[in-house]
Amino acid sequence: MLDEELKRRASMVTDAIEKLLPVVHPQGLYKASRHLVDAGGKRLRPSMLILAAETVEGDQKVVLPAAVSVELVHNFTLIHDDIMDHAETRRGRPAVHVKWDESGAILAGDTLYSKAFQILASTKTDPGCVVASMEMMAGTCTAICEGQWLDMEFETKNRVSEDEYLEMIEKKTGVLYGAASWVGATLSGAPEVQVNGLEEFGRLVGMGFQIYDDVLDLTAPPEVLGKPRGGDLVEGKKTLIMIHAMERGVVPEVLGKKNATTEEIEAALSVLEENGSIDHARTKAAALVEQGKRALDVLEDSEAKDLLLELADYMISRRY
Amino acid sequence: MLDEELKRRASMVTDAIEKLLPVVHPQGLYKASRHLVDAGGKRLRPSMLILAAETVEGDQKVVLPAAVSVELVHNFTLIHDDIMDHAETRRGRPAVHVKWDESGAILAGDTLYSKAFQILASTKTDPGCVVASMEMMAGTCTAICEGQWLDMEFETKNRVSEDEYLEMIEKKTGVLYGAASWVGATLSGAPEVQVNGLEEFGRLVGMGFQIYDDVLDLTAPPEVLGKPRGGDLVEGKKTLIMIHAMERGVVPEVLGKKNATTEEIEAALSVLEENGSIDHARTKAAALVEQGKRALDVLEDSEAKDLLLELADYMISRRY
Repeated sequence: MLDEELKRRASMVTDAIEKLLPVVHPQGLYKASRHLVDAGGKRLRPSMLILAAETVEGDQKVVLPAAVSVELVHNFTLIHDDIMDHAETRRGRPAVHVKWDESGAILAGDTLYSKAFQILASTKTDPGCVVASMEMMAGTCTAICEGQWLDMEFETKNRVSEDEYLEMIEKKTGVLYGAASWVGATLSGAPEVQVNGLEEFGRLVGMGFQIYDDVLDLTAPPEVLGKPRGGDLVEGKKTLIMIHAMERGVVPEVLGKKNATTEEIEAALSVLEENGSIDHARTKAAALVEQGKRALDVLEDSEAKDLLLELADYMISRRY
Repeated sequence: MLDEELKRRASMVTDAIEKLLPVVHPQGLYKASRHLVDAGGKRLRPSMLILAAETVEGDQKVVLPAAVSVELVHNFTLIHDDIMDHAETRRGRPAVHVKWDESGAILAGDTLYSKAFQILASTKTDPGCVVASMEMMAGTCTAICEGQWLDMEFETKNRVSEDEYLEMIEKKTGVLYGAASWVGATLSGAPEVQVNGLEEFGRLVGMGFQIYDDVLDLTAPPEVLGKPRGGDLVEGKKTLIMIHAMERGVVPEVLGKKNATTEEIEAALSVLEENGSIDHARTKAAALVEQGKRALDVLEDSEAKDLLLELADYMISRRY
C-alpha cells in the first residue's frame, strides 16, 4: 500500500515538473537541467513533503510547488556532486557532465537551484509562511554544501570519528528530508511543535537512509545496484562501516584501491561482516529511524502519519 | 561626489558582509566563499540597490541585507564563470578554482548562492514584498544561467547577430542590475510604475556597462586593466565590436588565437578602430545608458536620483 501511495504522489510531482520546468529557450540548458530529473528516481523527498502537509490537514495542491522545489534542489546537488566525485553514471544514465561537459553541468545545476526558489516563491498561501519556507530551504542548501565539503575533506583525512561522520550525513542528506517535512507543515499553517516534530522525523530518517545506503553499497546484488558493489570502499570513502572497522584496527587492503578485483572486494566484505562493522551500521540506521518515528508522537493519528511511519521503515529495508 | 557617495554605500555593504557571512565551520568552505568577495570590486550592484531604495524614500538599513544578497549572487556567478572560462585570475587574485580546486570553487559558489537567499529572506519588512523580491532574484539567477549558456554557445557559432548578442548581455549582465534596482524599490514599498522604471534603468545601464567593458578590454592601458588587452579577441569572444566587424567582412587574424603577440593584437585593434567597430560599440553603450536614464522620469527629483543618473554616466566613462 505504501508503494501505491508513494507512486501516486511521485506522479503528481512528475506532472508538476513538466509544467513548472518546461524546456524553453535556450533549449540545451533546459534539456541538461531536465536530464537527471526526467530519469526519475523515487521522489522520496517531495513525497515526504506532501505527506507531512497531509498529517496537519494541509492541501496537497498548495504544497505541490514546494514538493517540486525540494526535488529540484536534490537533483541540483546530484549534478554538482557527480562533477566533484567524477561519477560517470546516475540512475542508469550518463551523468550530466558526461553527456554535456563540466560547464554545462555546472550551469544545469545552477539553473535547477534558481528554478527551485522561483517555484517555491510562487506558493499560493500566507506570504509569511512562504518567506519562512524559503529561508529554511536556503539554509538547508547551505548545510548541504557544508556536508559535501566535509565529505571531501574526509577523503584526505586519516581518521574520521563517528561523530564527525554523523555531522556530515546530517548535513549532506538529513537536513533536506527534514526541510521537506518542515516546509510541508509550515506551508499548511501547522503549529510550531508539529512543524518541529516533522523536521526531526525527516532529518533522522534521512540520516538512517544514508547509513543504509552505505550498507547497500556493500551488500546489495550488483544487478540491483546497477553498478559493482563496494564502490565506496575502492573510492576510499569514510563510511560508518569503515570508521567502525578502522577504530578496531581493521583496514581492508582494497580501501581506496580503484582497480581492486571483485574477489578482493568480496574478501573485504567478509572481513567487515565478521568484524561486525556492517551490523553496527545497520543498528545505527535502525536506531535513528526509531528516534525519528517517535518525533511524530506530536501529531494526531491519520492515514498520512501511518504512511510516514511506513516510509521510515521502508528507508532501511529497501533493496536499492 | 559620486565617488564619495558610492564608497560610503560600498563600505556599508562590506561591513554587512562581515556580519552576515562569517567564516564558520567548516572554515575552508567559508574562506573559499569569501575569497573573491573580500577582494573588493566596486560594489556597483548593491550601491545601485541602496540608491534605488533612497529614490523612493526607502530606508538604507532595511534594504542592506538585500544589497548584500545581490553582491553575493554576483560573486557566485564570477566564481562559476571563472571555472567555465578557465580564467586564472580575478580582481588581482588567483581565481577560487586555482587557489582551491574546481570542486572547492563549485561549492564556494553554491554556498554564496544559498547564503544570498537566506540573507534576502531575513529582510525586515512586509513579507509579501520579501517573497516578491526573492522570486525576482531567483528569476534573475535563472536568466543569468541562460545568458552564460548563450555566451558559451556563441563561441562555437560562426555567426552571431547583434540581436542575439544583446539578448545574451541583457541576461548575463543587465538583469542583475535591473533586479538590484527593482528589489531596492519593492522592499521600500514603492508603487509599481516606479519599481518598473527603476528595473528598466538598471537593466539598460547594465547592458551599456557590459558593452563598454568589451570596449575597455580592447582599448584600456594594460596596467589599468590588470591584464594584457585584447583578451576577448584572442579568446574568440563574439563581442558587439567583433559582430560589427565580421558583418563587414573584417575578421582579425588574431581572433581565437590564444598565443597572439602584442604586436598582432595592436594591429587588429587599429583595424577595428578604422572600421568603426569600436565606435559602434561606444555609441550603442551610450544609447542604452541614455534610454535607461529616461526610464527614471517616473521618479520625483532627489539627491539619490541625481546620483543614479551620474552612476549611469560613470558606467560608460570609467577607465576600468
